[in-house]
Amino acid sequence: MPDQVKISHEELESSGFCENPLFGCLVAEVPEEHKSKEGFTVVGYGLYFYTYSTWRGRALHLEDLYVMPEFRGRGIGKSILSKVAEVAKKMQCARLQLSVLNWNTPSRDFYAAKGAQDLTAAEGWHLIRFDGQSLDNLANDAPKD
Amino acid sequence: MPDQVKISHEELESSGFCENPLFGCLVAEVPEEHKSKEGFTVVGYGLYFYTYSTWRGRALHLEDLYVMPEFRGRGIGKSILSKVAEVAKKMQCARLQLSVLNWNTPSRDFYAAKGAQDLTAAEGWHLIRFDGQSLDNLANDAPKD
Repeated sequence: MPDQVKISHEELESSGFCENPLFGCLVAEVPEEHKSKEGFTVVGYGLYFYTYSTWRGRALHLEDLYVMPEFRGRGIGKSILSKVAEVAKKMQCARLQLSVLNWNTPSRDFYAAKGAQDLTAAEGWHLIRFDGQSLDNLANDAPKD
Repeated sequence: MPDQVKISHEELESSGFCENPLFGCLVAEVPEEHKSKEGFTVVGYGLYFYTYSTWRGRALHLEDLYVMPEFRGRGIGKSILSKVAEVAKKMQCARLQLSVLNWNTPSRDFYAAKGAQDLTAAEGWHLIRFDGQSLDNLANDAPKD
């Protein structure tokens, strides 16, 4: 869905590599001799940030977990997920959370096999979003200080 | 569900009031003469933090939106939501997101009436969680550096 990507390389870089970065990222690298068809040695990544629950404190949210198609089926995604879980434990997070699309059965099965709970299926949590005009309208209705 | 709350007052305070706070919070206060039955002047709050999308950049997540039952029906929740949307716009967030339970029809109707999209209903997003033993197992499986 490339039309939905509204972010520049510079914006990503300045958000992630600064004094108070908005996210952290772990990458999977292969040796030069195993590089991808397009010549890349970074073949996968996990991008995460911290969230907060007033019941449980700091949590880690895994926003993206990606492995290039030609490197799938070798446990790289599993290794990235495990390393991110290690970060969560080090940072004293009680939870590691992520979102997955209903039709993405391979991913849902993968997470379920690792012991994850599907909170939408089990408890009925729905994700709600304001953006564009609905966000502008809300902000414009704010009481003045 | 008080048994699920595993956080102390001290932990909340140190996480929110420090150099790099894990969350922000707006409170609704009433004048002393309108205080609650229990004697409180803070009668509602909205607690939020920032998240990140590699498609759209920084976003704001509203974790809690609460108004004491005796102060409901006067637009206080709507005002807190609008002020949080104002914060989102000021911080250049393209989105304000939150989670709501399926059975919480009044809240779902409230957000829908303000123009929010239900991404779980519309696109099929599911919320996935690792915690306790499943998080420990994942972290213990991490490849060594």
